[in-house]
Amino acid sequence: MLNWLLIFLPIAVYLEFTHAPGTWIFIAAALAILPLAGLMGRATEELATKTGSAVGGLLNATFGNATELIIAFFALQAGKLEVVKASITGSILGNLLLVLGLAVFLGGLRFKTQVFNRHNAGLVTSLLTISVLGLLIPAMFDLASRSFAGERNPAGIDLSLSVATAVVLILIYIANIIFSLFTHKNVLSAHDEGHGEAHSGPAWSVPVAVGVLLAATVAVAFMSEFLVGSLEEATAALGLSEFFVGIILIPIIGNAAEHAAAIVFAMKNKMDLAVTIALGSTVQVALLVAPLLVLLSLLVGRPMDLVLHNPLELAAVVAGVVIANNIARDGESNWIEGLMLLGVYVILAFAFFFFPA
Amino acid sequence: MLNWLLIFLPIAVYLEFTHAPGTWIFIAAALAILPLAGLMGRATEELATKTGSAVGGLLNATFGNATELIIAFFALQAGKLEVVKASITGSILGNLLLVLGLAVFLGGLRFKTQVFNRHNAGLVTSLLTISVLGLLIPAMFDLASRSFAGERNPAGIDLSLSVATAVVLILIYIANIIFSLFTHKNVLSAHDEGHGEAHSGPAWSVPVAVGVLLAATVAVAFMSEFLVGSLEEATAALGLSEFFVGIILIPIIGNAAEHAAAIVFAMKNKMDLAVTIALGSTVQVALLVAPLLVLLSLLVGRPMDLVLHNPLELAAVVAGVVIANNIARDGESNWIEGLMLLGVYVILAFAFFFFPA
Amino acid sequence: MLNWLLIFLPIAVYLEFTHAPGTWIFIAAALAILPLAGLMGRATEELATKTGSAVGGLLNATFGNATELIIAFFALQAGKLEVVKASITGSILGNLLLVLGLAVFLGGLRFKTQVFNRHNAGLVTSLLTISVLGLLIPAMFDLASRSFAGERNPAGIDLSLSVATAVVLILIYIANIIFSLFTHKNVLSAHDEGHGEAHSGPAWSVPVAVGVLLAATVAVAFMSEFLVGSLEEATAALGLSEFFVGIILIPIIGNAAEHAAAIVFAMKNKMDLAVTIALGSTVQVALLVAPLLVLLSLLVGRPMDLVLHNPLELAAVVAGVVIANNIARDGESNWIEGLMLLGVYVILAFAFFFFPA
Repeated sequence: MLNWLLIFLPIAVYLEFTHAPGTWIFIAAALAILPLAGLMGRATEELATKTGSAVGGLLNATFGNATELIIAFFALQAGKLEVVKASITGSILGNLLLVLGLAVFLGGLRFKTQVFNRHNAGLVTSLLTISVLGLLIPAMFDLASRSFAGERNPAGIDLSLSVATAVVLILIYIANIIFSLFTHKNVLSAHDEGHGEAHSGPAWSVPVAVGVLLAATVAVAFMSEFLVGSLEEATAALGLSEFFVGIILIPIIGNAAEHAAAIVFAMKNKMDLAVTIALGSTVQVALLVAPLLVLLSLLVGRPMDLVLHNPLELAAVVAGVVIANNIARDGESNWIEGLMLLGVYVILAFAFFFFPA
Repeated sequence: MLNWLLIFLPIAVYLEFTHAPGTWIFIAAALAILPLAGLMGRATEELATKTGSAVGGLLNATFGNATELIIAFFALQAGKLEVVKASITGSILGNLLLVLGLAVFLGGLRFKTQVFNRHNAGLVTSLLTISVLGLLIPAMFDLASRSFAGERNPAGIDLSLSVATAVVLILIYIANIIFSLFTHKNVLSAHDEGHGEAHSGPAWSVPVAVGVLLAATVAVAFMSEFLVGSLEEATAALGLSEFFVGIILIPIIGNAAEHAAAIVFAMKNKMDLAVTIALGSTVQVALLVAPLLVLLSLLVGRPMDLVLHNPLELAAVVAGVVIANNIARDGESNWIEGLMLLGVYVILAFAFFFFPA
Repeated sequence: MLNWLLIFLPIAVYLEFTHAPGTWIFIAAALAILPLAGLMGRATEELATKTGSAVGGLLNATFGNATELIIAFFALQAGKLEVVKASITGSILGNLLLVLGLAVFLGGLRFKTQVFNRHNAGLVTSLLTISVLGLLIPAMFDLASRSFAGERNPAGIDLSLSVATAVVLILIYIANIIFSLFTHKNVLSAHDEGHGEAHSGPAWSVPVAVGVLLAATVAVAFMSEFLVGSLEEATAALGLSEFFVGIILIPIIGNAAEHAAAIVFAMKNKMDLAVTIALGSTVQVALLVAPLLVLLSLLVGRPMDLVLHNPLELAAVVAGVVIANNIARDGESNWIEGLMLLGVYVILAFAFFFFPA
């Protein structure tokens, strides 16, 4: 349904090569990424359907957050480390408050009380809580060691701990794939079953799916480069901080396809799928995207630690985890819960907007 | 049962006009407020019974925390902003730890295990958690921006964020009234049904109830003015900080009627009502009382933000929310849980007492 | 099964009296404590079986964490207050993440999904959450008052609050004994029933059990004195900070017997016992060991407050409580949950290792 936005793909290319004002390039590239991310998601799922559940699950688990990873990678290469980190936090907050909030609210307007499997939701919430708290340890470490040592630690310590943390998280990620694809395949199988239903139209053949996946990935990479290249000019012109763009705008752009899928499922009263998408995507950010970016940062010679830019991010992520636990644990949702999630997200967006640069 | 304390109403007036020592005025006004708050609560409920559940629910939702609001309003006008903020935190802590603790403990001494509806408790706890965390965002923002910017931000930023937060919270409050009175009326209806039982004696006619409500409101207003006017002198004489009075004493005075009702219900083994009163009152403080005070502060020309005076308050409120979640989620209570809630409240009271002024 | 390690008892004595290098003494004493703690645990249980459930429960509740208490007492006498405090935090983290993680992981490798009584787990988790948060209030107080007052408070205030907190916690501990041995005996009885099964071999007679208990206690006391006496030399030689030894190594040494028992039960699919040991031991540290050390510190003239050395400890303990809540609440466990608990523990161990001295 977002496919008409593909018109912004040639527009962004044109603007980039005619050296148009950065704000225009930024907006065109952002709008072009939305349908591309959707196409990547659909191609991955079509392949997953064809290849059987184990390989398919692996594909989904690997490419599920590919758009975010690509955008973050170009921001990393451009040395915009704080934008990268903000986009990690923003992706977690966006999934836990905005995606879940929209799904619960819009689903709740149509159905009085929506129920989902407490058992599965409980398991995903446990994984979510533990993985996100693990991810936050380097930030807590930095905050603690600065308050304790009275001044900022040498960057080396933060980086060493971040690399060690990243390695542990990636090992847990691999274990989690073994868990969900082999030892406990049935537990999370509800996800795979109905996932295709978010799309309409006939199935794609394998060559079409592979072709779309490759083409969309390449296009996302170009658009991400344009986006990052025009970031400074655009933020200056729009009066936004790079931090705000990283924590609010980039995650919305990168996750739009997942947002759409979760909302579609919620409005069809398939809350299990909606909740699994929102929470599962958060687990993936914590266990794969964030640690992978730390390791990639060493490769590209722009070492990035996992220490959050801003203690408010830390507090916000902890609050998001507590809130998602609350919503998911009781196996029921209604519109006021969704509205409250959105309300907290709006208050946080104001806070990030007002935050001193 | 507190009605004999009404004798302190004329005593307080006499002391005020004879310019008696502030401590005496303070104590007399505080004692006079206790039965007045009880009368306001009863009059509201009598009216609610007469007017049908929708209007009645609206009345309850609006006047439920009227006493606290009136006391806080006079403190606001007197420029005692830190006392006002402390009374907001103290009201949340008092409901979550003291009221719930007394109800669970005293109920548990009489009944081995008390059960309540996990479903309803889960919903109220979700609303509670989200609304209180939303309320705390400006405080987290201030703490983060100060640790980040190295010095206190210009008050303007804190105030802008607080006003934005207050507007969002009041919109959620209005949505919550729509939720509980219209779209999901039955879910929380247990509350209204048995509420009247906390009182004995014949029902009041509408004119009597309206008259009592008006008279008690006017009397509470006067007593609040006396209380605030004598605050400085009384705290100096009693060796207490204004912060301690705001966070411990004022909430106990303002919430006494609710404390009594929750305990009465717990001792009749009606834990659903007891839990709903304690948690529902907290939601009301977060969604209505606190944001309304921010907006009123602009009207009376004493702009107040939502940033808490003391990071310990922030930690204590988060701890209170986590603990209330624990108690309410499993749908069961016993005396040791109540005793532990009271124990944490006592430790916090010591901490606030020792806190450097 | 650890009994062959008793050989290190004479070795440690020999090394101590020949003034061998501190590292050797430290390692020998540490290895000797492992089987001694196991013997103390077994003797307590044998006595508990003989004396009937009330007295037996009291014995278990009092001597359950005796090893930790003895080690901490000698560290206290040696003036190593930060080591004592670190060992309290480390004991809580070790129980919540390492013991629970190993039990859930190893049990989960053998059984696909392990279930336990949500009811009992919910009650123990509530007690755990409230008691640990109560214990943390002095640390939050110190952090808040320092950030507020701009400099470290006079030690007197922290100590006064810590003593008040310790008294409240010990009163709750006594209440908790009344609760679990008298008023709600049946609720936690599962614990006592199967506990003996962790051991093999014939039952001990009362004189044997008393003799073993006394002998092992005396031996643990000597080993603890050697351990503490060689601490400085050993940490310098091994390149570890005293903080790291206190928060990671000492709790592992002191709790090894409990670790073994919890794992044995998990691998026999008796998850109720495994969870109760891990969580119950944490409650005991918070309600008895920590407050008792504060009061003992006054007696031995080395006043110790409850303020944690390091804000990261505070964050880690809160995270541990949130995670344990997650795992225990849903009444089910599997290997990935255990692995994640261990992962968080490893990341924390790295963080404590890197922490600036």
